[in-house]
Amino acid sequence: MNQHAIRELAASIDHTLLRADATLGQVQRLCQEARQWGFCAVCVNPLWVKVAVQALAGSPVKVATVVGFPLGATTARVKLVEAQEALAAGAAELDVVVSLGRLKGGEETAFVQELAEVVELATGWGATVKAILETCLLSEEEKTRAAQWAVAAGVHFLKTSTGFGSGGATVEDVALLRKLAPPSVGIKASGGIRTLAQARAMLAAGASRLGTSASVAIMEEAVSWYGS
Amino acid sequence: MNQHAIRELAASIDHTLLRADATLGQVQRLCQEARQWGFCAVCVNPLWVKVAVQALAGSPVKVATVVGFPLGATTARVKLVEAQEALAAGAAELDVVVSLGRLKGGEETAFVQELAEVVELATGWGATVKAILETCLLSEEEKTRAAQWAVAAGVHFLKTSTGFGSGGATVEDVALLRKLAPPSVGIKASGGIRTLAQARAMLAAGASRLGTSASVAIMEEAVSWYGS
Repeated sequence: MNQHAIRELAASIDHTLLRADATLGQVQRLCQEARQWGFCAVCVNPLWVKVAVQALAGSPVKVATVVGFPLGATTARVKLVEAQEALAAGAAELDVVVSLGRLKGGEETAFVQELAEVVELATGWGATVKAILETCLLSEEEKTRAAQWAVAAGVHFLKTSTGFGSGGATVEDVALLRKLAPPSVGIKASGGIRTLAQARAMLAAGASRLGTSASVAIMEEAVSWYGS
Repeated sequence: MNQHAIRELAASIDHTLLRADATLGQVQRLCQEARQWGFCAVCVNPLWVKVAVQALAGSPVKVATVVGFPLGATTARVKLVEAQEALAAGAAELDVVVSLGRLKGGEETAFVQELAEVVELATGWGATVKAILETCLLSEEEKTRAAQWAVAAGVHFLKTSTGFGSGGATVEDVALLRKLAPPSVGIKASGGIRTLAQARAMLAAGASRLGTSASVAIMEEAVSWYGS
């Protein structure tokens, strides 16, 4: 791994802190680390968007936040208000949990409309929307349907997992989503990515973005590999 | 356990279905069970409040829903909008996850104000507010502080757990919260309650409400105990 590859790896990472009990000080440290390593974005809970935007002022690191997280089971209107507030506070990326109940219940119109409204709003702000599918709760057929419906809603990324479910990203799921989505839609692998080997396997399977809270450890591993 | 005790047990239970992937059909079944057994309330995700209100029309079973669930890490404004929408849709009880980050960071004013605004709104609708403290993430000192701040905000119940954390209700936590709260504030034990013995232990420790998804199994156990 050369220095260019190391920079590219960092630029693929959403440096993530979504613990329920994360504090202001921990969010500020996360932002410092993201500046230092050149991560693509930090990903924080809505409560901390303003703090992160302030901490990252003047840096190319973006602020991502989550909507309807992690269950995706709030109403369409609340997801929209949450998105609006995050965008107004300076979030550049929204990771939105889809309505898994509507997916499993076959309620296609409600599922797609909810996401499409968030996409329309975010697009007006020049922001990116990632649909979190929570693949650990889905059958193969449901993964396919979720991907198709989310793409129909116009999302910019399909994201595997919340990190709060019973399982995270798998190489198989990333490859499946990559196969299902058009080239213009990115794949974000998230949940359980803790080593350089896992990170590289996800990228090789077709992920264009990684969500992890082990970002610094992964980068240190990459640097030591380069140095050796 | 006589028939009166069985009815009292049922009347203490919030019959709960908060899985991310619960479907409309499952929510309707939950409501039927609640009517049949005489549970105090059903507890469902915000997405399903309207469905539950409709399914329970004409019955004394109340509809409870959750706010900022399960991380409590969305903004105060989004919690308020979520509460408003749930109340307008007919929810009679709101189980609100407190801001654990603000609790741990010592941000008392923001913590209390957020909850107090929800209480003020809900009171106008004649609705009940329960503060979910997620005790599994808290030290003894933090549990005490969370209870005191939530009581100061005017909540009607202290609730131990979301059921999505690393641990649920314990007899010790229920007893601690009972000791800390004034008599006018109820205690709701939730998370991991799956047997009649556990349910009775929580009530004996001072809980006045139980949140469980094993309600039917617990009631069947109580009935068989009565029958024997």
